[in-house]
Amino acid sequence: MPVVKIDLIEGRTNEDKQKLIKGISNSFEDIGIAKEKVHIIINEVNKENWGFKGLQATEWMGK
Amino acid sequence: MPVVKIDLIEGRTNEDKQKLIKGISNSFEDIGIAKEKVHIIINEVNKENWGFKGLQATEWMGK
Amino acid sequence: MPVVKIDLIEGRTNEDKQKLIKGISNSFEDIGIAKEKVHIIINEVNKENWGFKGLQATEWMGK
Amino acid sequence: MPVVKIDLIEGRTNEDKQKLIKGISNSFEDIGIAKEKVHIIINEVNKENWGFKGLQATEWMGK
Amino acid sequence: MPVVKIDLIEGRTNEDKQKLIKGISNSFEDIGIAKEKVHIIINEVNKENWGFKGLQATEWMGK
Amino acid sequence: MPVVKIDLIEGRTNEDKQKLIKGISNSFEDIGIAKEKVHIIINEVNKENWGFKGLQATEWMGK
Repeated sequence: MPVVKIDLIEGRTNEDKQKLIKGISNSFEDIGIAKEKVHIIINEVNKENWGFKGLQATEWMGK
Repeated sequence: MPVVKIDLIEGRTNEDKQKLIKGISNSFEDIGIAKEKVHIIINEVNKENWGFKGLQATEWMGK
Repeated sequence: MPVVKIDLIEGRTNEDKQKLIKGISNSFEDIGIAKEKVHIIINEVNKENWGFKGLQATEWMGK
Repeated sequence: MPVVKIDLIEGRTNEDKQKLIKGISNSFEDIGIAKEKVHIIINEVNKENWGFKGLQATEWMGK
Repeated sequence: MPVVKIDLIEGRTNEDKQKLIKGISNSFEDIGIAKEKVHIIINEVNKENWGFKGLQATEWMGK
Repeated sequence: MPVVKIDLIEGRTNEDKQKLIKGISNSFEDIGIAKEKVHIIINEVNKENWGFKGLQATEWMGK
């Protein structure tokens, strides 16, 4: 029943996503919430659309 | 003025989206909120990016 | 599996919430998604925390 | 540390996004929160996926 | 830089929250993202405001 | 029509919120979107519920 939404800069491999989903699900199990109930939604954001320090990510991270 | 955000696995037809927007808007009318005020945003998520039961949707739904 | 998040100004009755949950769930059934899979989260926002037209809701709606 | 998420209809130029990121960051500075701490995420939504007044944006805005 | 938002039914202890924050942060480290960059926001939802299976959580979970 | 959601640690004055709403609305006007169309929702988060660097905000900010 918990819902987890993740915003991150795009460019992760599929294996990274699987590890993240597994790791976060296990973190819920550790506090007594079965992973069968946990939804995780990954939102990949392109660098133009992520601002930080007043700049686009293209500017503070490089292209 | 209400804002509704929907996350769902991608792959719905345009007709489904129209029906969903109409149906949800009507649900607000039923509690006295004019549909002229209701914003609905649909976020289509690919299966790699949706985790459930510790797995990617590609694994628990098939590809 | 769809997740629906609703932001609205606080002050709805419990009955309104039940009707909204039921109505939105039915809207998903109408496009072939069983309501057993639909999560709906209502976020009640106080008027100080909702801005519209450059003003707080306390200003454009009255207190 | 504040996190700002913006949903808007797709179609803004990169320059618009930069101005928006800069302007919003400055708004936080004006209340004493350094822009070095502000994350801004822009979510561009296509017109099929934005409902308003019970209609898709394609219908109330034109295509 | 990743931002994680968690919606769950209210009623978790502070210790549970600490464990969850630590566990999720470690999951990011496992894919090469330093926990110094990870923001996690927990949104506790009361049972009246969580719908599932067309019902309020008060109905499908008991009060 | 744009929707802006802000998550920040609780404890801002009402005047701060008004300034933030006004400032952000003006930022949209600067890119040609009338402030009459901009919704802004502020979500105040208590320190227990905000994690950063693997810790609760109570730990990295002080109580």
